[in-house]
Parts: sequence; C-alpha cells; structure tokens
Amino acid sequence: MEPRDGTQSALKHKAIIDAATALFLSKGYQDTSVEEIAARAVVGKQTVYKHFADKQQLFSEIILGNIATAEGFTAAAAGILRGTDDLERDLREVARRYLVAVMQPSVLQLRRLIIAEADRFPGLARTYYERIPGHTVTTLGSCFRDLAERGLLQTDEPALAASHFAWLVLGQPLNQAMFCGYADPFSTSELDHLADAAVRVFLAAYAAPDPRP
Amino acid sequence: MEPRDGTQSALKHKAIIDAATALFLSKGYQDTSVEEIAARAVVGKQTVYKHFADKQQLFSEIILGNIATAEGFTAAAAGILRGTDDLERDLREVARRYLVAVMQPSVLQLRRLIIAEADRFPGLARTYYERIPGHTVTTLGSCFRDLAERGLLQTDEPALAASHFAWLVLGQPLNQAMFCGYADPFSTSELDHLADAAVRVFLAAYAAPDPRP
Repeated sequence: MEPRDGTQSALKHKAIIDAATALFLSKGYQDTSVEEIAARAVVGKQTVYKHFADKQQLFSEIILGNIATAEGFTAAAAGILRGTDDLERDLREVARRYLVAVMQPSVLQLRRLIIAEADRFPGLARTYYERIPGHTVTTLGSCFRDLAERGLLQTDEPALAASHFAWLVLGQPLNQAMFCGYADPFSTSELDHLADAAVRVFLAAYAAPDPRP
Repeated sequence: MEPRDGTQSALKHKAIIDAATALFLSKGYQDTSVEEIAARAVVGKQTVYKHFADKQQLFSEIILGNIATAEGFTAAAAGILRGTDDLERDLREVARRYLVAVMQPSVLQLRRLIIAEADRFPGLARTYYERIPGHTVTTLGSCFRDLAERGLLQTDEPALAASHFAWLVLGQPLNQAMFCGYADPFSTSELDHLADAAVRVFLAAYAAPDPRP
C-alpha cells in the first residue's frame, strides 16, 4: 500500500497548495481560513494540518515556490554566459529567457502577493527577495565578473552591472504587470524587442572596447 | 464664521486621510472599517461620510495622492532638460531628484498598497499606473525626443529610452523597498551613486556621437 498512499498524499499536498494559492490571491492571507482551504481542496481540515503545521507555513511554501523557477533560469543563464563565444547573441538569449521566466502569470501573482503581505511577513519577504531577485542578480554579477576577466566586458562593479542588466530587461513589463495585471500579456515579439533593446543599451555601456592591433 | 469652518473642515479632512492611510497600510483595505477610521481620526462616522462618499472613494483619494508628488518631479525634470546646456550634469540632477521623489516612505507605502489591492481595484490601479509611472515616462520620452531633435541624444524610440532611463535609475532600490521595506533607507550618497551610474549607462547608449569637424 505504501506507493499508493505516497501518491495519494502527494496529490492531496498539491490540491491543498493549489486551493490555498487561489484563495490567498483572491482574498488575501488574513481573510483566508484553513477551513476554506480544506473545503476547496476537498480534504478534511486535519489533512491540511497533517501536511502543514499552520496557515503561515503553507503560505511560506507557496511563496517560495518561485525559487525553483528562479533557480532554473539562473542555472541556464550561468551556463550560457560561461561558455559564450558570441556575447551579444548569448546576452540576448539570457534576456529573453529572463523575461519568459519572470513574466509567467503564476510568478507574477506570487510576486504581487508577497509585496502585499511584506509588512505582515517581513522575514518571508526578505527571504523571497534574497533567494529570488537577489540570487539571480548575484549570479549574473558573478558571470559578468568572469566575462570582465576574459576581456569581454569592462566593469569595476559587476554587481551593479548585473542590476542594470536586470532592470533594463524587466523593468517596464514587470512594473506594468504589477499594476495592470496579466490578463493582456505581452506578445513574444514585444518581449523579444524589449530583450534585444536592453542588451543593446547594456553592451553600449559595458562591452570591452575592441582590441586594436 | 466661514473661514474658521473652512479651516476646521480641512483639518478634519486631513485627519481622516491620515487615519485611513495608517489603517489601510497596517490592516489592508478589506479589513478596515469606516468606524475604525472615524475613531482613529477622532471624528464621527457621519463626518467621514460628509467628506467621502464611501470607503472606496477615500481609498482612491489616498492612492492618487502620489500624483502630486509625481507631477512635481515631472515638471521639474522637464524644465531642467528643456533648458539644458550640459546634458550629463542635468541628467544626473534629474536622476537624483527622481530617486528622492520615488524613495520617500509615504510614496513607497502607497505604491505597495495599490499593488496589493490591484485585483480588487483594477480601474484604480490602472489609473495609478497611467498617471504616475506612465505619465512620468511619457514626459521623459517627450524630453528625450526634443533632445534628439537638438542633436544631443540619438534614439528612434524615445519612449523606450525613457523607460530604460527610469529603470536604470530606480530598479534596484525600488525593488528592494517593495520587499524589504523602508526601515533601513538608502543613504544620500548611495542614491547619488546609483543615479550617476544610471546616467553613465544611459549616455553610453543614447548620447549622440560628438560632431567631428
């Protein structure tokens, strides 16, 4: 019976996460009860408590669900940049992937939710900040330091260069989504245009000058 | 008696706005009642309704209070850029003022509040977006178009250039404040450094090349 129990347990875990995510997003954390989460997930209240110590731990697990998405992008970006032999092409690829990762409705929703609840959960909001945008920019900064050592970029402040890259790429569509929602998403060609324009600006400032013979 | 009544009425109006702002920020819109607002402002509930049709209209007036700050910055920036005879110096001045305007705790708090309530008030959030960040970037774009016509900048997409300028300047500190709060604010020298670095990147990409004889 173990495997079947294990599968059922995993299915219930996911049903609870999905139900709680939907309720936190529509009603906010404070106004959502464990009873409502259990009812929407079609499980008993005790089952919720078997999986999660309390409502706050459930919220935490949901919010930090964006970490997997962020780490997937960050690992891919580092791999692309470490092996680059065409920096402009590869930065465009990284910028496009960055937009795809961040502009997913599920990522945007959790981002908005944690900003909304940051006063109530300052520790969780700081963890989110450090492990998602913070970790991404730190990794990009480390890649840019390596690229400067290879003579492909020039910067004394690779962390600041990484922050400039991130905000050139993400700023406008991410800000728009925070206020105006995700019902009318950007098209792939709009996002590609933003990615390419961001890379053009970034390289104008940070590309190492061509070595002259 | 008219002037004294007018003054008292204005004082009550402000007391209601201040009380409601504090409550919306600490408890959220939904969990704040008009009774609590009246109690905190030390006025009767009927006085609240004499000044504001309902809780939503009060919320609206508070949120749109950032418009005055935004318009003050935008007008100053346009004045500086239209008369510039030293673009680098004047862009640095605009970038510093932009950070000062946006990084005020009261502005950051309302920004976080409208993001938190954007699902509940999509029309208000869109109005905020259009009249505050949207209007600022549109005005900067119009200034950059003029500067391109004067031969000081080069860009086919002044609106995109304005968005790049805005996010180079604001991205990192604004994002950090959304997640980590405003208890530990940036120092003036940190903000000045961010402003100057943003202008350096912006001009590397958008400054018109020096005319050669």
